[in-house]
Amino acid sequence: MLRNLSVGELTPKEELEKRIFNLKKKMEEKGVELSLIIQNVDLFYFAGTVQKGALIIPVDGEPLLFVERNADRVRYETPFDFIPIKREKDIRDILNERGIKGKTLGMEFDVVPVALYERWRDILKIDNVIDISNEIKDLRLIKSPFEVEQIKKSGEVTSHVLKKAKDVIREGMTELEIDAILGAEGRKKGHQGFLRMRGLNQEMMNIYITHEHSCTIPSSGDVPIAGVGITHAIAQGASMNIIKRNIPVLLDYGGGYNGYITDETRAYVIGSLDEMFRKPYEVAREIVETTMVFAREGINGKEVYERAHSLVKKAGLDDHFMGHGRGKVGFIGHGLGLEINELPVITPRHSIILKEGMVFAFEPKFIFPGRGAIGIEVDFIVRKDCLERVTDAPIDLVFI
Amino acid sequence: MLRNLSVGELTPKEELEKRIFNLKKKMEEKGVELSLIIQNVDLFYFAGTVQKGALIIPVDGEPLLFVERNADRVRYETPFDFIPIKREKDIRDILNERGIKGKTLGMEFDVVPVALYERWRDILKIDNVIDISNEIKDLRLIKSPFEVEQIKKSGEVTSHVLKKAKDVIREGMTELEIDAILGAEGRKKGHQGFLRMRGLNQEMMNIYITHEHSCTIPSSGDVPIAGVGITHAIAQGASMNIIKRNIPVLLDYGGGYNGYITDETRAYVIGSLDEMFRKPYEVAREIVETTMVFAREGINGKEVYERAHSLVKKAGLDDHFMGHGRGKVGFIGHGLGLEINELPVITPRHSIILKEGMVFAFEPKFIFPGRGAIGIEVDFIVRKDCLERVTDAPIDLVFI
Repeated sequence: MLRNLSVGELTPKEELEKRIFNLKKKMEEKGVELSLIIQNVDLFYFAGTVQKGALIIPVDGEPLLFVERNADRVRYETPFDFIPIKREKDIRDILNERGIKGKTLGMEFDVVPVALYERWRDILKIDNVIDISNEIKDLRLIKSPFEVEQIKKSGEVTSHVLKKAKDVIREGMTELEIDAILGAEGRKKGHQGFLRMRGLNQEMMNIYITHEHSCTIPSSGDVPIAGVGITHAIAQGASMNIIKRNIPVLLDYGGGYNGYITDETRAYVIGSLDEMFRKPYEVAREIVETTMVFAREGINGKEVYERAHSLVKKAGLDDHFMGHGRGKVGFIGHGLGLEINELPVITPRHSIILKEGMVFAFEPKFIFPGRGAIGIEVDFIVRKDCLERVTDAPIDLVFI
Repeated sequence: MLRNLSVGELTPKEELEKRIFNLKKKMEEKGVELSLIIQNVDLFYFAGTVQKGALIIPVDGEPLLFVERNADRVRYETPFDFIPIKREKDIRDILNERGIKGKTLGMEFDVVPVALYERWRDILKIDNVIDISNEIKDLRLIKSPFEVEQIKKSGEVTSHVLKKAKDVIREGMTELEIDAILGAEGRKKGHQGFLRMRGLNQEMMNIYITHEHSCTIPSSGDVPIAGVGITHAIAQGASMNIIKRNIPVLLDYGGGYNGYITDETRAYVIGSLDEMFRKPYEVAREIVETTMVFAREGINGKEVYERAHSLVKKAGLDDHFMGHGRGKVGFIGHGLGLEINELPVITPRHSIILKEGMVFAFEPKFIFPGRGAIGIEVDFIVRKDCLERVTDAPIDLVFI
């Protein structure tokens, strides 16, 4: 029944087993005897379901998936055996019965709230709890061929919306109207509904239509451009700003398919591009093109940033690169997967050697206070000898 | 500039001051000398902005709002003075300079992740940290006239979408198509973009189109009906299910205006209602109508639930009320405000005396495994002598 209603493929069993095997290796290195996974995205990564439950992974035994509510769904979604429970406290008794114990418990400290941490520490009666979130993020950094396939399908949704925008954006419309129409386009094409971003206060929309000064107001998120929003209570996304000729309209769209996110940006112009944006656009384009020539497995992400940055400095655009003033962000690319803020981060602040299967959004953007912004964002899959584009949407400036 | 781009009114200064005053009273009762507010919704509640920062409230002094990024936005949004900082660590120095200290720190344990809790404990050098999330939730329980006004505007968005649905829902469409069209309708009408739900793994969409068996599969959330979703990675919302005659289509829509949420459900039928849903619909309607007759300030929420429940039992529908089997939820209503899972919860599990200014969604629903579901959800404001409806959308079954 579920099969006919949903379109997303289930995660293959061997894939889940391999992920758990890899986590166990990391647990062993860190001296963690049991791991407790409760965040829904991590649960999906290791067990193939987001249903309410808890996954306990002993370093030297089989994983135990405890399910609180929806056994029928979980039975369909996960290839693992699982144990239906009524309350979380039942888990302690079951672990005791099976003789499963550990002195050191690993948990996801970057997302698990203090109250839940304390409750689980009490349920499992383990005092020594340590953070395994970095280990999980490291595992999720390299995407499998199955994951890359999902990301490419997510890219099809993104590509569709980026192409459709040419028929929608018109002078005199508000950003909000364009957002509504293109948001619906993506959803009809199979967008999963929302996107996930890891951590407290990390909120995002599927679509950002920004234009002129609405592009240039920093947001509370660590992103170069997020828009003003139609209320300061949300403070991001489309605003009531009206689209004018010759000034770029930026469309930053996040596709979502079967949990996997893509994230690309294009610039659209009604009429002819105001001269002030011409050079920045060319530099953004040059950055994307030169990066595609040299970057591949083995290259340091830091070098990717620095080569881009030297083109920016040569063009005299440093003050506007990736924000301005306190709105500047310290990266030019961010990892994509089940969440939009994954590794790798392409930044001068630390080294990361690119490896086959990493996926990241690459977004040279220039912001001119009060005037507007321009840039390009494309998603890359790192390959042995190149960067592969995720979508087929051209990176050209689109004239309307 | 921001004023022209966004439509949401700023929170009045006296309102923010009153909220902080009330929190201080609770801090005093609990022996908390300093409170640290970092979750964006709580920050919005107490300081009027969601920009990245931290609000420190000494029990016996003026609040200090530290802002990390976006001073211009905060200056416009908050009536308070604030202190721009470069890094969170600067806060310690500033507190030291000003001689502000405390031995007991209050934090939002229900939402703040362990890693952030540890970082802040280290920054502020306070070992004794206690949970103030229940105190904050209690304060937010009673809505001020300003808040009720925002909720009513949010209700206008909801009302618009509920009415528009009659022109959109047609036989042969997928749930997903209806979702896309009505989602866009709400956004065009000024929906803020997304809705907030408090806590780990609490995710939600603005719109749920469910029909026939897609209504009847429990979700991972503590809600009676959430749909199947188009992927098990999201596992909620519209699916690829095709709309058929005579079976109810449920539209559960969450309006959002200036941060405030409304949440109503209507049933739509193409043709004539299948006989099996007739009585459940009438009982849902009777529950809403009788509740509106007796419930008001001073009535116990438990009584509201129990009176509804006795109508359900009399009609022999108990097995289907608010879910079936393990999918059953233990409430018939939930509080609304800046988050969709606020207090009060209308449940038999604990007493809550209704008070003027409480706002809750009330949702008698009946689920028939594999067959479909029907019900009504309306939002109420508790008044001295009645319940006031938030929206003007009729509660009738809509025939198409």
